[in-house]
Amino acid sequence: MATMHERPFDLLNKALGQQVLIRLKNGDDIRGKIMSFDVHMNLVIEGAEELDEGGGVKAKLGTILLRGGNILFVSPV
Amino acid sequence: MATMHERPFDLLNKALGQQVLIRLKNGDDIRGKIMSFDVHMNLVIEGAEELDEGGGVKAKLGTILLRGGNILFVSPV
Amino acid sequence: MATMHERPFDLLNKALGQQVLIRLKNGDDIRGKIMSFDVHMNLVIEGAEELDEGGGVKAKLGTILLRGGNILFVSPV
Amino acid sequence: MATMHERPFDLLNKALGQQVLIRLKNGDDIRGKIMSFDVHMNLVIEGAEELDEGGGVKAKLGTILLRGGNILFVSPV
Amino acid sequence: MATMHERPFDLLNKALGQQVLIRLKNGDDIRGKIMSFDVHMNLVIEGAEELDEGGGVKAKLGTILLRGGNILFVSPV
Amino acid sequence: MATMHERPFDLLNKALGQQVLIRLKNGDDIRGKIMSFDVHMNLVIEGAEELDEGGGVKAKLGTILLRGGNILFVSPV
Amino acid sequence: MATMHERPFDLLNKALGQQVLIRLKNGDDIRGKIMSFDVHMNLVIEGAEELDEGGGVKAKLGTILLRGGNILFVSPV
Repeated sequence: MATMHERPFDLLNKALGQQVLIRLKNGDDIRGKIMSFDVHMNLVIEGAEELDEGGGVKAKLGTILLRGGNILFVSPV
Repeated sequence: MATMHERPFDLLNKALGQQVLIRLKNGDDIRGKIMSFDVHMNLVIEGAEELDEGGGVKAKLGTILLRGGNILFVSPV
Repeated sequence: MATMHERPFDLLNKALGQQVLIRLKNGDDIRGKIMSFDVHMNLVIEGAEELDEGGGVKAKLGTILLRGGNILFVSPV
Repeated sequence: MATMHERPFDLLNKALGQQVLIRLKNGDDIRGKIMSFDVHMNLVIEGAEELDEGGGVKAKLGTILLRGGNILFVSPV
Repeated sequence: MATMHERPFDLLNKALGQQVLIRLKNGDDIRGKIMSFDVHMNLVIEGAEELDEGGGVKAKLGTILLRGGNILFVSPV
Repeated sequence: MATMHERPFDLLNKALGQQVLIRLKNGDDIRGKIMSFDVHMNLVIEGAEELDEGGGVKAKLGTILLRGGNILFVSPV
Repeated sequence: MATMHERPFDLLNKALGQQVLIRLKNGDDIRGKIMSFDVHMNLVIEGAEELDEGGGVKAKLGTILLRGGNILFVSPV
């Protein structure tokens, strides 16, 4: 059911500890568990995987600190 | 009838819970229900769909937090 | 007759409710009625139309909230 | 004779009401009468003309509000 | 085991003195020991190596001060 | 002899009224007399000349107000 | 031996008066003696040389004020 979020970043807060898909500005997709975030949308992603066009795993990145400025969108999966 | 909005972001406020089309700087179009926004134009979009050139659904994205800096325009549909 | 404007944004204030042409950084032209603006040059445009190179209507966009950062110039028409 | 300007923006102040050539970051040239400016180098240009490579008039733009961030340089003509 | 970090930059703090992999926005990879960082994600990397596509060492860079704005992600290795 | 400057902008201050070469981010070179500058590195250049690859004069620009954000480096000549 | 720097900019402070290699965002390399820096990483480089791909001197630039925003990394040599 649709719930009206109060602030966009509430989505990140609710997603903590869960899998998210991150679409980057350069078109790449990264998937992993979101462990923390800050006001710049910098994210720590655990078990991060770089995906290929078909959604398969292209590379395992481990734990990464991703700069928010590179993000197009974040989506809980 | 044309109503003089007081502030551009009033358009987002009125559109909460409704379908919008978002044209990105990279030319892509995303459609979905706007659930929240902030002063950076970061948006939470529910039932987000990536559209192809003809307006058909290219991919279902679910709920996304879209960074405002990637947006060209937002339009209620 | 040439009138010395006090501030560039006075042009937007005078144009409220009137047709403007907006040239975007990506080269696209959008035309419509300007309904509101803010200090970032974010604009609400009513009856927005995307124009082709010859000035004809390529697509009707309806009411849009255009992010100011994408704008090259705005011109009353 | 060379006069030491105190601040770069003094050049704009002195040029008010006069013709200037504006070279944009995208390489385009615009010429017209500068009517106002602000701290972001946003300019209102009256009788603005887009010039072609040879300096001829490619298009008449009328009065425009040009976003400062697009400017490479401004030169009184 | 997954530990919930309080702030994304805690990852950098924990990684001080250890090897990290840095993916740049331009696609290049740099590996080395992180010695310091600041709020802009500027990093001092000791024994920095530029990697080729296969992960081999393309060039030895020594100690570098890397501007944070160029970073896509940082990952402890 | 090498003198330790206290602040990078001291170089601009010392160069006032003298010829400088300016390399732009887009690769173009401009040469002329620096008349003023501000904290954004906006410069007024008198007798500005656009140079071709070989260092010859490609175009005479007169007096220009150059936006600092376009600059790669400035060098006294 | 590895020393834990307290702040990334300490590296610039220690390098004052010494040769550094600067890798620019556009891929170019500049080498010279660092004479001053500020919080934006703007640098004055004395005896600056533009290097070719093989590390040879492509052009002598003299003393330059380099805008920090163009820098990828700085490395003492």
